[in-house]
Amino acid sequence: MGAGAGASEIDQQNAYKLGEMIAQQGWVLLTGGRNVGVMDAASKGAKAANGLTIGILPTDDSSNVSDAVDIAIVTDMGNARNNINVLSSNVIIACGMGAGTASEIALAIKANKKVILLNDSEESKIFFSSLSRDNIFIAHLPEEVIKIVKGILSDR
Amino acid sequence: MGAGAGASEIDQQNAYKLGEMIAQQGWVLLTGGRNVGVMDAASKGAKAANGLTIGILPTDDSSNVSDAVDIAIVTDMGNARNNINVLSSNVIIACGMGAGTASEIALAIKANKKVILLNDSEESKIFFSSLSRDNIFIAHLPEEVIKIVKGILSDR
Amino acid sequence: MGAGAGASEIDQQNAYKLGEMIAQQGWVLLTGGRNVGVMDAASKGAKAANGLTIGILPTDDSSNVSDAVDIAIVTDMGNARNNINVLSSNVIIACGMGAGTASEIALAIKANKKVILLNDSEESKIFFSSLSRDNIFIAHLPEEVIKIVKGILSDR
Amino acid sequence: MGAGAGASEIDQQNAYKLGEMIAQQGWVLLTGGRNVGVMDAASKGAKAANGLTIGILPTDDSSNVSDAVDIAIVTDMGNARNNINVLSSNVIIACGMGAGTASEIALAIKANKKVILLNDSEESKIFFSSLSRDNIFIAHLPEEVIKIVKGILSDR
Repeated sequence: MGAGAGASEIDQQNAYKLGEMIAQQGWVLLTGGRNVGVMDAASKGAKAANGLTIGILPTDDSSNVSDAVDIAIVTDMGNARNNINVLSSNVIIACGMGAGTASEIALAIKANKKVILLNDSEESKIFFSSLSRDNIFIAHLPEEVIKIVKGILSDR
Repeated sequence: MGAGAGASEIDQQNAYKLGEMIAQQGWVLLTGGRNVGVMDAASKGAKAANGLTIGILPTDDSSNVSDAVDIAIVTDMGNARNNINVLSSNVIIACGMGAGTASEIALAIKANKKVILLNDSEESKIFFSSLSRDNIFIAHLPEEVIKIVKGILSDR
Repeated sequence: MGAGAGASEIDQQNAYKLGEMIAQQGWVLLTGGRNVGVMDAASKGAKAANGLTIGILPTDDSSNVSDAVDIAIVTDMGNARNNINVLSSNVIIACGMGAGTASEIALAIKANKKVILLNDSEESKIFFSSLSRDNIFIAHLPEEVIKIVKGILSDR
Repeated sequence: MGAGAGASEIDQQNAYKLGEMIAQQGWVLLTGGRNVGVMDAASKGAKAANGLTIGILPTDDSSNVSDAVDIAIVTDMGNARNNINVLSSNVIIACGMGAGTASEIALAIKANKKVILLNDSEESKIFFSSLSRDNIFIAHLPEEVIKIVKGILSDR
């Protein structure tokens, strides 16, 4: 999860790398599916490593779908689809921050899912850790994220 | 908006007072509709002042509806209904904090709605102000909230 | 419930009359909320009789809301909002037919709600009665509808 | 699409055969994802032919998911998820009838999608054909369905 059109260069680079590493693990990548920002970069990284990519689209407008999405789930329910993103994922990775991403992290905590914050702001790390000590993990590099995910999955 | 079963005593008192003052202004109160916490207290306050109360329910279970809700909208879509709460409101008031409330504030910023944080934690005020300078207002008392809402409505 | 832009003259007249009679009973009218067809006519009828009107809107576009809607619930979830229409109503009245209306009748049967078909086609009456003998009622005039609703409400 | 727990033996056999043939074409199968009736049978057929299966789940209860679903999308929005089923599919195939299936066919017509009715009742075929002449196709055998889908896809 991460910003759309306004995503930073570093967040998009991290997202691409993460997508690649997720695919290399044989995991399925699920994103918000649009052809911008973190979701597009992550999907492209996963496809570069022959992964399977799912996109949960907010609108019924095919011109907004990332080319790197294999399976487009069309919700036509706007940002309410953020709850589906979260409930359908085993682990949530937030790559950077924005209002949509913040809603996903909050919904993930509500659903008792684990969330990894990669390259997040200090304000965000402090706030979400205050909301849930147990569900929030902090990472600085994509490699760290993968290691944390493995730990979470092996605990289930 | 605010916590359900885990709401603090002070948040529930503020919510009751807010509900009362909202009704006295002739405004309609919209909450998450359940019979617990901030939503229940606010609805009861509004009914004590003869207001109209709407509840946007997450599940199709009538035993969870607050007695103080006049109009129960049954979504059966869990926390995805938080987006409906936000989109259907002119101004969002967060009374205390929790994961569900955090998701509503984030979705409100995403929808470019104004949000007033009443009696919120420092972490939360800092984080949401960092997400949006223009949409977040801080208040310490219900009376202040009403004054801020009037300002927002007169600017529209 | 009934057609939007393509509603027939007779269905709109019936809807207006129904809205009026629903308000005269002191009942709350819930429609799809848009400013066209059966939903608009029913809301106008209810307001003419000083009723309370709720509109469950499919999109977040205020230019589409009927002037006769008191409480606009903005779902931004397109036709998936049809399920909310049905779950939030005590009794469903279909005034004429269309694809959206058919989805609401089917969802109502699924949720075990009672549905009254007013001025419906033969194909529709036969089909929905075949789906559920117990949930489908047939009426030819608004007055009949009100009588059937009273019977249903007194049985609850 | 088709009935859950109450699906007939013939509908389940057709669904299994359809799932198998869909996979053999290299198409992705999307169902409602639960471990009962037509959705379970179709998913099992597709897996028997090494297909990819998507399930759009109504609730967040993993005990209800079919073992033959590869990708479980958890909506937690009950029957409102039927609209997602329809919008995410290129062609909708109804295998038998029930209230949920009827809502999907109606939502598909509303979204201007093509729907193939396999082994459907006379009442249903007459009703849905009256709702939309252009979107409804009638089939008696799984082989016919595949032929019709090919025709629809080649026209796009």
